[in-house]
Amino acid sequence: MSDKISNEMWGGRFASGPAAIMEEINASIDFDKRLYGEDIDGSKAHAMMLGVQGIIPADDAARICEGLETIRAEIASGNFTFSRQREDIHMNVEARLAELIGPAAGRLHTARSRNDQVAVDFRLHVKSALGQTAAALEAFIAALLDKADEHAGTVMPGFTHLQVAQPVTFGHHCLAYVEMASRDLSRCRDAMERLDESPLGAAALAGTGFPIDRHATAAALGFREPTRNSLDSVSDRDFALEFLSIAAICATHLSRLAEEIVIWSTPQFGFIRLSDAFSTGSSIMPQKRNPDAAELVRAKPGRINGALISLLTVMKGLPLTYSKDMQEDKEQVFDVIDSLSLALAAATGMVRDMTVNVDAMRRAAGHGYATATDLADWLVREAGLPFREAHHVTGRAVATAEAQNVGLEDLPFEALHAIDPRITRDVYSVLGVDASVESRTSFGGTAPDNVRAQIAYWRGRLSEAAR
Amino acid sequence: MSDKISNEMWGGRFASGPAAIMEEINASIDFDKRLYGEDIDGSKAHAMMLGVQGIIPADDAARICEGLETIRAEIASGNFTFSRQREDIHMNVEARLAELIGPAAGRLHTARSRNDQVAVDFRLHVKSALGQTAAALEAFIAALLDKADEHAGTVMPGFTHLQVAQPVTFGHHCLAYVEMASRDLSRCRDAMERLDESPLGAAALAGTGFPIDRHATAAALGFREPTRNSLDSVSDRDFALEFLSIAAICATHLSRLAEEIVIWSTPQFGFIRLSDAFSTGSSIMPQKRNPDAAELVRAKPGRINGALISLLTVMKGLPLTYSKDMQEDKEQVFDVIDSLSLALAAATGMVRDMTVNVDAMRRAAGHGYATATDLADWLVREAGLPFREAHHVTGRAVATAEAQNVGLEDLPFEALHAIDPRITRDVYSVLGVDASVESRTSFGGTAPDNVRAQIAYWRGRLSEAAR
Amino acid sequence: MSDKISNEMWGGRFASGPAAIMEEINASIDFDKRLYGEDIDGSKAHAMMLGVQGIIPADDAARICEGLETIRAEIASGNFTFSRQREDIHMNVEARLAELIGPAAGRLHTARSRNDQVAVDFRLHVKSALGQTAAALEAFIAALLDKADEHAGTVMPGFTHLQVAQPVTFGHHCLAYVEMASRDLSRCRDAMERLDESPLGAAALAGTGFPIDRHATAAALGFREPTRNSLDSVSDRDFALEFLSIAAICATHLSRLAEEIVIWSTPQFGFIRLSDAFSTGSSIMPQKRNPDAAELVRAKPGRINGALISLLTVMKGLPLTYSKDMQEDKEQVFDVIDSLSLALAAATGMVRDMTVNVDAMRRAAGHGYATATDLADWLVREAGLPFREAHHVTGRAVATAEAQNVGLEDLPFEALHAIDPRITRDVYSVLGVDASVESRTSFGGTAPDNVRAQIAYWRGRLSEAAR
Amino acid sequence: MSDKISNEMWGGRFASGPAAIMEEINASIDFDKRLYGEDIDGSKAHAMMLGVQGIIPADDAARICEGLETIRAEIASGNFTFSRQREDIHMNVEARLAELIGPAAGRLHTARSRNDQVAVDFRLHVKSALGQTAAALEAFIAALLDKADEHAGTVMPGFTHLQVAQPVTFGHHCLAYVEMASRDLSRCRDAMERLDESPLGAAALAGTGFPIDRHATAAALGFREPTRNSLDSVSDRDFALEFLSIAAICATHLSRLAEEIVIWSTPQFGFIRLSDAFSTGSSIMPQKRNPDAAELVRAKPGRINGALISLLTVMKGLPLTYSKDMQEDKEQVFDVIDSLSLALAAATGMVRDMTVNVDAMRRAAGHGYATATDLADWLVREAGLPFREAHHVTGRAVATAEAQNVGLEDLPFEALHAIDPRITRDVYSVLGVDASVESRTSFGGTAPDNVRAQIAYWRGRLSEAAR
Repeated sequence: MSDKISNEMWGGRFASGPAAIMEEINASIDFDKRLYGEDIDGSKAHAMMLGVQGIIPADDAARICEGLETIRAEIASGNFTFSRQREDIHMNVEARLAELIGPAAGRLHTARSRNDQVAVDFRLHVKSALGQTAAALEAFIAALLDKADEHAGTVMPGFTHLQVAQPVTFGHHCLAYVEMASRDLSRCRDAMERLDESPLGAAALAGTGFPIDRHATAAALGFREPTRNSLDSVSDRDFALEFLSIAAICATHLSRLAEEIVIWSTPQFGFIRLSDAFSTGSSIMPQKRNPDAAELVRAKPGRINGALISLLTVMKGLPLTYSKDMQEDKEQVFDVIDSLSLALAAATGMVRDMTVNVDAMRRAAGHGYATATDLADWLVREAGLPFREAHHVTGRAVATAEAQNVGLEDLPFEALHAIDPRITRDVYSVLGVDASVESRTSFGGTAPDNVRAQIAYWRGRLSEAAR
Repeated sequence: MSDKISNEMWGGRFASGPAAIMEEINASIDFDKRLYGEDIDGSKAHAMMLGVQGIIPADDAARICEGLETIRAEIASGNFTFSRQREDIHMNVEARLAELIGPAAGRLHTARSRNDQVAVDFRLHVKSALGQTAAALEAFIAALLDKADEHAGTVMPGFTHLQVAQPVTFGHHCLAYVEMASRDLSRCRDAMERLDESPLGAAALAGTGFPIDRHATAAALGFREPTRNSLDSVSDRDFALEFLSIAAICATHLSRLAEEIVIWSTPQFGFIRLSDAFSTGSSIMPQKRNPDAAELVRAKPGRINGALISLLTVMKGLPLTYSKDMQEDKEQVFDVIDSLSLALAAATGMVRDMTVNVDAMRRAAGHGYATATDLADWLVREAGLPFREAHHVTGRAVATAEAQNVGLEDLPFEALHAIDPRITRDVYSVLGVDASVESRTSFGGTAPDNVRAQIAYWRGRLSEAAR
Repeated sequence: MSDKISNEMWGGRFASGPAAIMEEINASIDFDKRLYGEDIDGSKAHAMMLGVQGIIPADDAARICEGLETIRAEIASGNFTFSRQREDIHMNVEARLAELIGPAAGRLHTARSRNDQVAVDFRLHVKSALGQTAAALEAFIAALLDKADEHAGTVMPGFTHLQVAQPVTFGHHCLAYVEMASRDLSRCRDAMERLDESPLGAAALAGTGFPIDRHATAAALGFREPTRNSLDSVSDRDFALEFLSIAAICATHLSRLAEEIVIWSTPQFGFIRLSDAFSTGSSIMPQKRNPDAAELVRAKPGRINGALISLLTVMKGLPLTYSKDMQEDKEQVFDVIDSLSLALAAATGMVRDMTVNVDAMRRAAGHGYATATDLADWLVREAGLPFREAHHVTGRAVATAEAQNVGLEDLPFEALHAIDPRITRDVYSVLGVDASVESRTSFGGTAPDNVRAQIAYWRGRLSEAAR
Repeated sequence: MSDKISNEMWGGRFASGPAAIMEEINASIDFDKRLYGEDIDGSKAHAMMLGVQGIIPADDAARICEGLETIRAEIASGNFTFSRQREDIHMNVEARLAELIGPAAGRLHTARSRNDQVAVDFRLHVKSALGQTAAALEAFIAALLDKADEHAGTVMPGFTHLQVAQPVTFGHHCLAYVEMASRDLSRCRDAMERLDESPLGAAALAGTGFPIDRHATAAALGFREPTRNSLDSVSDRDFALEFLSIAAICATHLSRLAEEIVIWSTPQFGFIRLSDAFSTGSSIMPQKRNPDAAELVRAKPGRINGALISLLTVMKGLPLTYSKDMQEDKEQVFDVIDSLSLALAAATGMVRDMTVNVDAMRRAAGHGYATATDLADWLVREAGLPFREAHHVTGRAVATAEAQNVGLEDLPFEALHAIDPRITRDVYSVLGVDASVESRTSFGGTAPDNVRAQIAYWRGRLSEAAR
């Protein structure tokens, strides 16, 4: 019976038995071909150094570089046939190089191994991804600043627990996301600085006896310096883990904005209207606008957190140095690069193109006695009441307004005075939503002038960064 | 300045602006084309039912089914051009159907929506994946039983903390994995039973006023019955979450075996030798055998746990019913189907093909005074010592043997008798590793006869299941 | 310098050096004391069996059981001093037993080890947690059914993408959660069935040579049967992983309801009002009702998914049998038991106590031309239009209504007839939201009579289960 | 029936109904009392600033500070009764302050809310945890450097796939972990820099109209500056997420070392011996040394990765600003602080105390023809063979040695010469393991002099940091 089951088993994807399984395990070319540019850059830097150091003939070095450029052009133009038998991008390139330039190709592997080769390729790719993420974050910040500028004085409800708490401005709300994005940006830059070491020349795991010049290859590849320990060089995937954790936090920020966009786009809220470009409709319900782009952005932490956990799980408890387990590193990172880039582009586009319903926001801000805190603060500040007593008086004022079904600022003075004789007509200066936001002038507060000052600050920072 | 940044931003993958972003967000055809078979099955069942119920003309139903079979053949043979503009598998098939049979194609969408259509496709796919996983688990169990049978009496060290604790048999060790795999199998079957409901006919989310027969379509698709609530039908992804959690537990089991294989394959342990098919070598170190297949299997929980977290994260806090977030469900599940299938095939193959070094195992079992517990138990059982005193005596015996650098069974009787006069020559019957394993006859214990009885039990269960 | 650093290092929590570290590592009594009841049950079952089998004197067995009951009473009444030096619950109980009954206490450990002891304690605890979860799910279902019954005919908007799609009833919406909870319930029952095996008697890892009766102890502890493999018995934590994955899926369901409650409780939606008991207010904003309970329930997947990942990560790649890593299993499971129990209780309470704003729901359902699909379906069904043409006509009708700023059912007949002469006055029978929901009579559809039938069905199932 | 179920339900932990549930939801005092020091620091800074700014009388400010110091002393000495009714640390302190100093206590809450209060407390705590982690990492690095120094020339096998690949030195291996720990350290420092902003004064969410001086309170609390946006100030938990991700990567490093320790401690490897302090034994198997500390360290990524996923999941898609969901942030972070601190202390202690079996390491390094690469490199470098031909010759040499069951360096010259006449007697200079490691002089390579230079480099860096 077990034979029958076994046959069924092998009868599927792995009908040809162990060979098919091992091809599936070993072949990474389907995904690591994405590294072809970095692989060619790394090989060129290595070959040139070998030539300069006299480890291989200068002629061979030149021919290798020429051949590698031919291969780069072939791949870029789609005229390269990748082979699963040649397992990975390194072997695909190397084999093609041998076809193009003959035995000299074999010299390229002197004082190098696939272990340091893949480490340098992958590190270059992640470094570049961090740079692209930083640029995308700058574009996102710029879009937020433009929107904040437009709405520095647009009053909206500030929420806690998704309940109206105090009035704020929409510009101030946009700036909250600028803060988040600027932290993301700063994390990207720290990570780029930290990973800026070249593992090339660590060889299989122990370094080499050939008189290589690792500082030269590091410089040629744009790295600050070479790594300092060969075992760590081929075992380390921190740069990938750090990129994934940065991406996870950034995607979390974007998902918060996305959730707000989904909620604000409901007819019930109606705070904003996404552009057609970022919504989908229905042929029979022309008024229905599904915020697909926002939902997609909201969902992205799913796969990004998943990828982070994946690689953390793979690396956990792995003895030094290279183990095959580590081949699981690239697909997750590539997927996150693409997912984060899409989410940032969609978030930037949505912010840029959204239409703000200023009236709906203001109306909602006025609901719910959102200026009750302003009244209490006025009682403390201007009428000298102790805090707790001020709260008590405010509670009675709100109850009175609620009973009359009006807002606090619509209560007649007599009513307020009756609640507490220390209340004067001056109090009306804080009961409206505009007065409320204008009064919040503490550093970082929502007063429109504060908001404008912050926009100027951030634009200055971006300009500086661009220089 | 922000324009410059913005341009850089759009200058990448999304150079053409929002349209490129939305295509990226909306297009799922790159991965959901995998569902083409299920999509065609679902559409045929629906069309036939519409015809039988007189909702559409019988002729149209027949033409639709014929057209769908043409499309199935086209896709199967690679003669179908998938289009990203048509977003997903449903629209790709529907558009082609219109080309093939004209306006009648439009009737297929009567009393149906993409929401219930994708739900039925995906559910059918997961159901089939569970079936395949169950079959693969049976093959794995069969391989383990064969190996256990061969080694029912092969003594090896039983480890705790990776330190030798007590002797067991390798057959008994294999049976531990049979237990795990049989629980995995049982989870697959429960999940198949639970998901066996057809969502087809839930329509967009509310059901329909057309006189459809959902029991008929459910039966035609091999489901036990239709789902009972239309809102849940289009919102539910439990079947995917449950599959992912089953896969995560199963992959955890396989990773434990894989870790053992990696450790056992070191020259230091030398307990087993993987076949060439499941190792990779080195051109210059012919004796080096890298257990790539085992490392791959060990790593798989990374991506499977990650996928589980991904979908749990996506579904968390999602209001009913369908939201675009849910489009993130398929890639993770497809990846896990493939990963688990590969890991099970590799584990089965490795078990089947491995060579066991019986001598190395026995030698290791004899180290470390692994039968000290047997001595203590003998003192309790045969000499009537209280447990704590038996432990004390045993400790002295081990110390004596260690001082003489011999095993317990090699201590002269005089030495043992000097430690405690209640020790008789009978004690030697429990001091050897064979005697030790043979004595463990409690139900579930490692005695070879127990092992053989368990193998018979499990073979019976498998035969029954195969009937 | 390193000494200075080292001193700083040890100067913190671990000032007393390695001993403090090891105590922290080894001592589990702070959390595993929660297992005291199960530990005592397990020990009693074991002692009685040892007595019956003649492995220890019957008198000793009796004294052990008596002593254990004394200890149970001491712990239950708070008169027991747990000691970190005695590491865990097993040693704390055992040491106290020795104080109470003297040397006979030592016999309890015959043919047993801490490995099978902790396995049986933990398994009993998880089994009981699954039973409690099942009971809590039944209470949740009962609350949902009561609310559904009350609102079988209450019209509300059915959402996709949080946009109004088609009218449904609130009763139908509640039943969607009944479906989810019933799947959770079914998963609990399957898991209880699967874990219902007693590991007691597996001893350290290999079984034992003492003539124990594992079937007897299994029966005494309420297990279906003993486990079949001693190595697996002490290595297996599937039952915990399965509980955690069930909890994760269940918590995901609850978080979806919680998100809806948060959104529905906003003044903008105003669909429901949580009771005071499940909200918190503000001393100065009496109208502010923070849905704290709902937010808490929404957040719980965080820690539950985290716990699931924790244990999966710990178990990944762990060689057989027991390793200290496995000590990390309990805290996560205990936390999830408490979190899930709290979330279920809060969800049940919120559903039971919530006030539904029937008018707000109906008003929202009427917005957004939610019956456009009904019009299109009517055109297909009654006027014989092909599907695509029906969609086209419907689009024009909605556009007309939108231009006139009225609902579809408020369009004069002339306007509809002008759009397409095949439209008759009968069409009004499907344009209102009540007509719409009443028409959705397909199995599982939202028609109030369907909803009532489903309520009856589920009540029947619950009654059966209670029998 | 539902009543019966409901009663059972409420009959458990939540017997007293909704009130018990809400207490469980709201009360955070059981865990947030850990923040008492930071809470008192924050309140003192706030009170003094209020006094200086004339917002409250200077006398009141002084009395508040005095009262707070009394409370600090009470808590520190265990003479403080925490109350669940007072929910959290803020309310417990505030209520006690009112008891101590009367109504003036109420003024403390001027221009502040619990939202910014908890943000500042938690941020201070995480900042301090990062500082402690950095100090613990420095101690770990110092221990590694000492061990590396001792074993700069101790030859051991360098592994890939846990198979012997090339000889390295144990000092070099230790330095690989120094690299990892130094990246962890650098991440801690970046995170401390990034979080170094005070949210105090953001008030509920919008800032305040009181003339507060946020720069003063920031300075008083040791922050670089105040935060720039009040909404973000109360919504942001990046600092916690970043700490958790740093901890996850650091714990991953430690788990790799721990796995190596577990494997190296087996009798089969025998590379090291853990000190008694970090092992546990067995009363009857005195030679058994369970590496409990290493296993614990290996397991820690479980709970740390889980905590990271927990908080990422909680924060995903949360609308601004504060929601109750965020109360789930602290327990996870506190647990990780403790877990990471324990893991670092255990790792440091194990490294410091371990005994290295130099002979066993060297013996293992010599196995497996680990210098085959050296032979191949010699053939390229000295005999001028192309790389592929050198590999071929080497393969034959290894096969010959294997057939004769000797090491490469034990092959007679004649045998080597027969394989390829270009081989000279000089080749023996690279065939021994010492020669091999000495030859790897490339930057970052394993040559003992390189190792010593790296130790000096790192000691210099540590000294600098200590200054």
